[in-house]
Amino acid sequence: MICGIVFDALWLPGTEYEEVSPDSDPSKVIELFDLPAWILGNFDALESVKKGLEEMTIWGESNELLGEIPPLHLSLHDKYGGSMVVEFIDGEMKIYDNPNGVLTNAPELPWHLENLRNYVNLSAYMKEAEINGITYKGMGFGSGYVGIPGDGTPPSKFVRITLLREFSNAVETEEEGIMLALHLLNTVDIPAGVSKREGSGPAAFENTQWVTIKDNKNLKLYFRSYDCSSLFVVDLNKVSFSNGTNHESIIVDKEFSVIDVF
Amino acid sequence: MICGIVFDALWLPGTEYEEVSPDSDPSKVIELFDLPAWILGNFDALESVKKGLEEMTIWGESNELLGEIPPLHLSLHDKYGGSMVVEFIDGEMKIYDNPNGVLTNAPELPWHLENLRNYVNLSAYMKEAEINGITYKGMGFGSGYVGIPGDGTPPSKFVRITLLREFSNAVETEEEGIMLALHLLNTVDIPAGVSKREGSGPAAFENTQWVTIKDNKNLKLYFRSYDCSSLFVVDLNKVSFSNGTNHESIIVDKEFSVIDVF
Amino acid sequence: MICGIVFDALWLPGTEYEEVSPDSDPSKVIELFDLPAWILGNFDALESVKKGLEEMTIWGESNELLGEIPPLHLSLHDKYGGSMVVEFIDGEMKIYDNPNGVLTNAPELPWHLENLRNYVNLSAYMKEAEINGITYKGMGFGSGYVGIPGDGTPPSKFVRITLLREFSNAVETEEEGIMLALHLLNTVDIPAGVSKREGSGPAAFENTQWVTIKDNKNLKLYFRSYDCSSLFVVDLNKVSFSNGTNHESIIVDKEFSVIDVF
Amino acid sequence: MICGIVFDALWLPGTEYEEVSPDSDPSKVIELFDLPAWILGNFDALESVKKGLEEMTIWGESNELLGEIPPLHLSLHDKYGGSMVVEFIDGEMKIYDNPNGVLTNAPELPWHLENLRNYVNLSAYMKEAEINGITYKGMGFGSGYVGIPGDGTPPSKFVRITLLREFSNAVETEEEGIMLALHLLNTVDIPAGVSKREGSGPAAFENTQWVTIKDNKNLKLYFRSYDCSSLFVVDLNKVSFSNGTNHESIIVDKEFSVIDVF
Repeated sequence: MICGIVFDALWLPGTEYEEVSPDSDPSKVIELFDLPAWILGNFDALESVKKGLEEMTIWGESNELLGEIPPLHLSLHDKYGGSMVVEFIDGEMKIYDNPNGVLTNAPELPWHLENLRNYVNLSAYMKEAEINGITYKGMGFGSGYVGIPGDGTPPSKFVRITLLREFSNAVETEEEGIMLALHLLNTVDIPAGVSKREGSGPAAFENTQWVTIKDNKNLKLYFRSYDCSSLFVVDLNKVSFSNGTNHESIIVDKEFSVIDVF
Repeated sequence: MICGIVFDALWLPGTEYEEVSPDSDPSKVIELFDLPAWILGNFDALESVKKGLEEMTIWGESNELLGEIPPLHLSLHDKYGGSMVVEFIDGEMKIYDNPNGVLTNAPELPWHLENLRNYVNLSAYMKEAEINGITYKGMGFGSGYVGIPGDGTPPSKFVRITLLREFSNAVETEEEGIMLALHLLNTVDIPAGVSKREGSGPAAFENTQWVTIKDNKNLKLYFRSYDCSSLFVVDLNKVSFSNGTNHESIIVDKEFSVIDVF
Repeated sequence: MICGIVFDALWLPGTEYEEVSPDSDPSKVIELFDLPAWILGNFDALESVKKGLEEMTIWGESNELLGEIPPLHLSLHDKYGGSMVVEFIDGEMKIYDNPNGVLTNAPELPWHLENLRNYVNLSAYMKEAEINGITYKGMGFGSGYVGIPGDGTPPSKFVRITLLREFSNAVETEEEGIMLALHLLNTVDIPAGVSKREGSGPAAFENTQWVTIKDNKNLKLYFRSYDCSSLFVVDLNKVSFSNGTNHESIIVDKEFSVIDVF
Repeated sequence: MICGIVFDALWLPGTEYEEVSPDSDPSKVIELFDLPAWILGNFDALESVKKGLEEMTIWGESNELLGEIPPLHLSLHDKYGGSMVVEFIDGEMKIYDNPNGVLTNAPELPWHLENLRNYVNLSAYMKEAEINGITYKGMGFGSGYVGIPGDGTPPSKFVRITLLREFSNAVETEEEGIMLALHLLNTVDIPAGVSKREGSGPAAFENTQWVTIKDNKNLKLYFRSYDCSSLFVVDLNKVSFSNGTNHESIIVDKEFSVIDVF
C-alpha cells in the first residue's frame, strides 16, 4: 500500500535539530534520514503524522559527503489535500500547517508567508493608468504583475510560484495539471552559472539540476533533469513494494535527447 | 544553399509601415510577408541585407485573421554573428545594429537598450553586507541579482534574458548550448492564465505557446510546444530545397508525452 | 535628572498584551500607557530596563478615541548607544536587542531584520556593466542601489532608512547630524493622499503628520510638522522637572511659514 | 512685466548642441546660456517660444568651471499650464510637449514617458489578496504601490514624482500647494553620501543641495537648501525689473537654523 504522502526536504541554514537526552526512550528517538521511511510507512494523513512527530525526538547526523549535519526543513503533502512544514529552530521542532502549499529554502516558513503581504497589489490582468489626464497603456500582457521579483533566491521563488499558480488557469485533465506544474517550475528555473559563489570548484554555482512533480492521487512521480528536456515518469502503481523485492536505483541525470521531425 | 540568416518577427504596437507612392519602381516595393523569402533568398550577411533594405519600400497588408495590419518589428541574425533589428516608426524604416542580440515585443529596441542601464548593479555572485556593524548574509544563491524583474511584460523579459545569458556559464558543446538556451527561455515562460486581459474569449490570456532555438551554424531548428516537454528538431541539412520539392507543414503543437522509467 | 532614554511606540496590528491573573502582585503589573513614565523615571540604561520589564506584566487598556486597545511595539534607545525593541505576541512579551536601531510598523522586528538579507547587493556607488561586450553606464548617481523599494509600507521604509543611513557620509557636528537625520526622514515622507484606504473620513489616508529627532546625548527633541517646513526644538536642559512645576503642552502642528528673502 | 515662464536646465549626458555654420544669420544664433534671458524677455506662452526656437540655432560653449560644454535638456512651464521640454540629440534640437510636466536628468524625455507604462498597475489604495483561499492583508497604508522604485537615479525619481503627485490629495490653498510640492520633493531627496562615485574629491558624491518651487501664477520662487530646513521665498512682485536697477545675488546655501519652543 502506498500512503500518498509526499515528503520533501529543503535547505534551511541555521537549522538546529533536537538534543537527545541519555535517558530518552530509544523508540521515541529518530535520526532525520530515517524519518521519510518512518512517516511513509506508518501514516497516510498529515493529522496523524503531526501527532506522531510530537512524541518523537529528531536528531541530525553529520553527513560524510557534506561534512556537516544537513540543515533541512521538511515539506509534507497528503492525498487529502493537507500540507505541512516541519522546521527545527534553536533545537526545537516546529510544525506548521501550510495552507499555501509552497516551500523553498531559507528562511523559515512563517517569514515567507508574512512576505506574501508585500505582493497583494499584483494581478494577472493587463492594466492601464491615467496620469495627469493622459492614458498610459501597460507594456502588454503581464503588466498587472510588474513588481514580482525575478531573481533566484528562495524568497523570490516562493513569491513567484505562489502568485503565478494563483493567477494560472484552472486545469481539467491530469496531463494539463502536469504541464501547468512544469511551466510554473520553468519560471523558477536556474540556468547553470546564473547564480554563483565567489571562488571555483563543484559548489561554485547552483543550477536547477532536476525538477520533480509528485501526483499523490495517481501515485506517479514525474521528473525532468537539466541536460534533457523530456519528461520521465515513475508509476508507483507498477512497483512492487512486497518484502524481498529488489529495486534498482533510477538514474535522474538523463542525457540530452531530441526528436527528429523528419 | 541555406543562407544561415535567422528572421524573427515580434509584436510592436504602434508600428507604421512605409507609404508606397504610385510612381514607385515596383521592383523596389515589397509587402512585409514577402520579406522573409526575399531576404533569405538573396543574402547571407546582415551587412548586405541592410544595403538591400535601404533601397526598398516595405508596406503592410491587412491580415484577415487578425483584422489588422500586424504591427511587427524584425530581428535578424546571420551566421557570422551579426544581429540587426528593423522597425517601422511613423512610416519610416529604422535599421539598428543589435550587439545585445535580444529582442522582445514593445517598445522599440533603443528603449530596451537604454533600459539595461537601470540594471548595471546586478551580479551573478552571492552577496553579503555589513550594516551598522552587523553582517547580513544574502538569502543564498541568486542574492547578487535581487531586483531583476520577474513579470511577463516584454521589457522585463528583455532584461531577464539579457542578464541571465550574460551571467551563465560558457558552454562547450552544441548540446550544452541548446540546453542553456532552453533553460534561459524557461525563465521567461508564461504559464497559461498568468497573463490575462479582462473579458473572455481566445485572446483573453497569453501563454508561451512554443519556444524555438535556431542554430544557424549547424542549420537546425529546435522547438518545444506548450503541451509537451520533449524537444524537437528540424534538421535543415536533410531538407531538399530544390525546385519542385513538396514540403509538408510541421505540426508544432505536440501532444503531451512522457517516458516511463520502468 | 533626565535619563536619556528614548521611548517610541509604533503600530503593530496583531499585538496581544499579557494577561493579568487575579492573584498577581499589583506592584508588578502595569498598563501600557504608564510604561513610559515608569521606564523613564526608573532607569537610564537598557540593560536594566530589560531586567525590570522581565519582572512586570504589561496589559493594554482600550482607548476611547481609538475604540480599541492600541496594538503597539516599543522602540527604546539609551544614551550609551543601546537599542531595544519590545513586542507582545500571543500574549507574551518579547524583548529584542536591536543592533540595527531602526523600527517601523508591521510586521515584527525579527521579520524586518531577516528582510534586510534581500538587499545585500545594493551599494552607494555608481555602477556600470559590460553585457555581451558592450559597456552600459548606469543612469547616474544612485545606480548602485536600484532595487531599493520606494513605497510607503513599513517594510519598505525600514529597508530605505536602514540602507540610506548606512550609505550616508559620516557627520562631524551636531547640526550636521540633525540635518542628516532630517534628510533620511525625507526619504520616507508620505505626502497627503498618496497612501489611501478605500472609503472616506478622517482615517481615509495617511500622511507623515510630523517627524521627530531625539538627541539623547544633548537632550534635545527636534520636530517638524506637515504644514510647516521649519525645524523646532525642545531643549530638555531648559525644562524644570522638579515637583510642582506646571508644564504647558506643546503644539506640534505648526502653521505654514516662510522667510522672505527681501 | 514678468512673463510667468519657468525655465529649468537638467543634466543629460550625450547632449550635442547644434552646429553653427559660418554663413548663419547672427541674429538667429544663440548660445545656450543666453537662452533663458532671450526666452523670458521675449515670450509669455510656450506656443510662441516653440515657434521662436524653431528659427534659432543653439550652440553650447565650454564652461571653464566644468571643463566641458554642459550637456543639458530644458524644461519650460508657462502660466497657462503649458509644459515643454527641449533636448539636443545628435546635433538636432527636439521640442516636446510635456503633458506630464515632470523632468529629471538622463535619459531623454520620450524614454521616461514610455517608462511610465511599466508602472500602470500601481495604486494609492491599500490592498489585500486571496491566495489559495487565504486572505493576506497588505502591510498597511502604501500597499497599493509596492513596486515603485526607491533609488536616486533620474528614471526612478521621474516615476516617483509622477505617480505620487497623481496619487496625492487635491490642494485648496496656495500654502497647501507649496507644502504638497515640498513633501513630494522630500520623496526624491538624496542625503549626502547616499549616492557616491568611486574615488574622492568634490564630485565624489551627490546630494540634494537645494530644492526650488516656482509658483508662476503668484510669481514667487520658494527654495530650501541642504543645511537648513526653513523655507525661503523670493517674491518677484517686490523686485524692480526696470533698467538700471542693481540686483544683489541671493545666497541659497542657508545655515542651519532651528526655532526654540521655549
